[in-house]
Amino acid sequence: MNETLYEELTALLESKDYPALRARLREMAYPDIAEFIMSLDDDQRLVKAFRILPKDSSADVFAYLDSDAQQTIVEKITDKEVERLIDDLYVDDAVDFLEEVPANVVRKVLANTDKETREIINRFLEYPDNSAGSAMTIEMVELHDDWTVGEAIKNIRRTGVDKETIYTCYCIDRGRHLVGTIPLRRLILNDEDTPLRDIMSDDEQLISVSTLDDQEQVAAIAKKYDLLSVPVVDKEHRLVGIITIDDIVDIIDEEATEDFEKMALLRPSEDEYLKTNVFVLAKNRIVWLLVLMVSATFTGQIIEGFEAKLATIAGLTACIPMLMDTGGNAGNQVSTLIIRGLALGEIQIKDYFRVLWKEIRVSVMVGITLSLANAARMFLLRFIIGGDTSNGVILVVCLAIVAAVMVAKIIGCTLPIIAKLLHLDPALMAGPMITTMVDAISLLIYFSIANALI
Amino acid sequence: MNETLYEELTALLESKDYPALRARLREMAYPDIAEFIMSLDDDQRLVKAFRILPKDSSADVFAYLDSDAQQTIVEKITDKEVERLIDDLYVDDAVDFLEEVPANVVRKVLANTDKETREIINRFLEYPDNSAGSAMTIEMVELHDDWTVGEAIKNIRRTGVDKETIYTCYCIDRGRHLVGTIPLRRLILNDEDTPLRDIMSDDEQLISVSTLDDQEQVAAIAKKYDLLSVPVVDKEHRLVGIITIDDIVDIIDEEATEDFEKMALLRPSEDEYLKTNVFVLAKNRIVWLLVLMVSATFTGQIIEGFEAKLATIAGLTACIPMLMDTGGNAGNQVSTLIIRGLALGEIQIKDYFRVLWKEIRVSVMVGITLSLANAARMFLLRFIIGGDTSNGVILVVCLAIVAAVMVAKIIGCTLPIIAKLLHLDPALMAGPMITTMVDAISLLIYFSIANALI
Repeated sequence: MNETLYEELTALLESKDYPALRARLREMAYPDIAEFIMSLDDDQRLVKAFRILPKDSSADVFAYLDSDAQQTIVEKITDKEVERLIDDLYVDDAVDFLEEVPANVVRKVLANTDKETREIINRFLEYPDNSAGSAMTIEMVELHDDWTVGEAIKNIRRTGVDKETIYTCYCIDRGRHLVGTIPLRRLILNDEDTPLRDIMSDDEQLISVSTLDDQEQVAAIAKKYDLLSVPVVDKEHRLVGIITIDDIVDIIDEEATEDFEKMALLRPSEDEYLKTNVFVLAKNRIVWLLVLMVSATFTGQIIEGFEAKLATIAGLTACIPMLMDTGGNAGNQVSTLIIRGLALGEIQIKDYFRVLWKEIRVSVMVGITLSLANAARMFLLRFIIGGDTSNGVILVVCLAIVAAVMVAKIIGCTLPIIAKLLHLDPALMAGPMITTMVDAISLLIYFSIANALI
Repeated sequence: MNETLYEELTALLESKDYPALRARLREMAYPDIAEFIMSLDDDQRLVKAFRILPKDSSADVFAYLDSDAQQTIVEKITDKEVERLIDDLYVDDAVDFLEEVPANVVRKVLANTDKETREIINRFLEYPDNSAGSAMTIEMVELHDDWTVGEAIKNIRRTGVDKETIYTCYCIDRGRHLVGTIPLRRLILNDEDTPLRDIMSDDEQLISVSTLDDQEQVAAIAKKYDLLSVPVVDKEHRLVGIITIDDIVDIIDEEATEDFEKMALLRPSEDEYLKTNVFVLAKNRIVWLLVLMVSATFTGQIIEGFEAKLATIAGLTACIPMLMDTGGNAGNQVSTLIIRGLALGEIQIKDYFRVLWKEIRVSVMVGITLSLANAARMFLLRFIIGGDTSNGVILVVCLAIVAAVMVAKIIGCTLPIIAKLLHLDPALMAGPMITTMVDAISLLIYFSIANALI
């Protein structure tokens, strides 16, 4: 939304020219209206702006608001308005909203819905977080498998206005079991008297998930088969809901964000950064920092145990940070590739030995290049500045670099796959975790080589 | 695809029972057929399996194959078959394929297409990588804005079978300018004689991108407005193509992968890990490792400059790795949050001071907690094992931890935003880069505090 439009809308709101404001909002897309409403600092004006929306679009706009704005509105509007709003919302949007707001708001909402809606909402709220059940909606087009195309289109015309999507229709039998899918496109392009059974996709092409499946799996299926919606079935294969592509796109973003956070050793949070208070931010960060801080003291002990020798041989100490950082970075690179590959399904556990063999070859190449560059740097430095770094020290450092890179690459490709094997999240085996392990091992190797050669 | 199905298909292929195999494949979804074909090691059998596909599905399956399999097939089939295949492919799939294969395959393909297709493909191949133009397809439904709903539906029934999607239709005027969009849903739910102009979305609701826009922007728009396809227009606002949601989902994954790679200081690569050869993998990793290796030598110089003092005061050296790792990890956490927030549009440049103020408060809390934990550990260790770590050293280490965490958090939230301000990719300002800077600064602080207090 551009600045001029925003200023125009604010001016209309301030001058209380509500008819003009309403007319202006009517021309705008729902996400833009929601953006405008969320930008209003004053709660009174926020609620006012929401209330003057045309009745048929207020639920659509509400679904695009963040939970703070949703909560403010529901607290301020009348019971009658709440009833109408919840009635107009798709079930998945209503549930998303109720999952985020405090208990008193949930109570106000449930008190103002009819028994049937209340039961549906309560059932949805019971599905585990991040399950297909918690992400689905019930507003889908259900067609009976003994209908014809003509009957199906007539049904869609009658009921379609309340459906979240009509582009993929689901065929059910008398027992409500999912028996086939038909894209609306196929209905439009076929003759009126074609039986649905002749054109619906069934057998192997009938893809569905069950209510307790993880949403990540739903996203993977939608991506693989390019679906606009994924049907959700219960244990008896009865159709209970669908998950539409707009929600799947959100799931894809959420899952990637979760991986980014886990890889940086943050406790995943579903809230946006700017909306999270500092205590929560601190809490989400502290546990892993503590664990790794304590682990890093082992590396410290290793250095301390070698301190006498370090003090006597010039140049050995100065290379410690370089070795640690290079090992850490090299490990981080490969673990990132493996974690992402596992997440996208491009790498499987069974590929481990192919990965390992690749990494061994890559690490030899990378290690030798880095250690040649380092030798050049150290010789050059000695030549220009002087200093008493011996050839022996240069050799030790170069060998240690190759070893550190190899250890880092091997650990970096192994740990995420082991995590996957143990049904842990591979994303935890990312940079920081690997760095801590690689640090200790590569310093041990460094000092052993030094002991042996000098 | 499950193992039994896979074995059944392989057995049919081996026993050359092609009619049965074809019947079996006909029941399967395209991505599953593609998976089966790609799993065949032998090129002859791979091409055979592709050739026995029913004619009307071979292009659909081809679009799901990876570029290795696509290349094998195109090299082995006849010119006539190539011609038919390219004719049946959607333009975006044909272009995707041609972008990945060697020049001789491209020549074979272009030699076997008619002049018009060849011109279209050549035009598409000229769009810059990752631009909207390179991702779009031209198979969209175009309706004239002076038609009625009835005329529109008749047009769709006639031409829809060749369109990549018919669910969002685009209204153009006599000059082919994009003037409105209509979801198929709205066509179905309106009366036959309603003029399109009365029901199409125009004005502020008319969302489009231009051919040279970055694909990341296309994805952001599709997500914000929950679009099933995004129209692409040229400089004169004439409709030239659309980008459909399945491609947008791929773009979202690609962009996240690119950020993961950049944050781990890998040169982004569009190929899957297992398909990339080791030289390319090594090349993609080496540049940044070299840069950071050299930078880390500064940290080494800092330690060396302080070596005399380190050797005389017990316990100081042992804490160096802990300080470096903790600073690096703390910086990595915040830079990850900021980079992801910027990528998803949840954080803007103008939020910098809010972010900074948040991070200062968080870092004080985190820093103090970590340093208390560390003090407890050091006292406990002295109590149990003995050793000669003085109270002074413990105090120095604790103060240095607070300082390191604060420096890390401030650098970690500042650099990505500066990068964004300079139109660089914030993802480069991630863990490894931040670690190298934080290492040097926090050791300088550590040694200064030690100098002042001991």
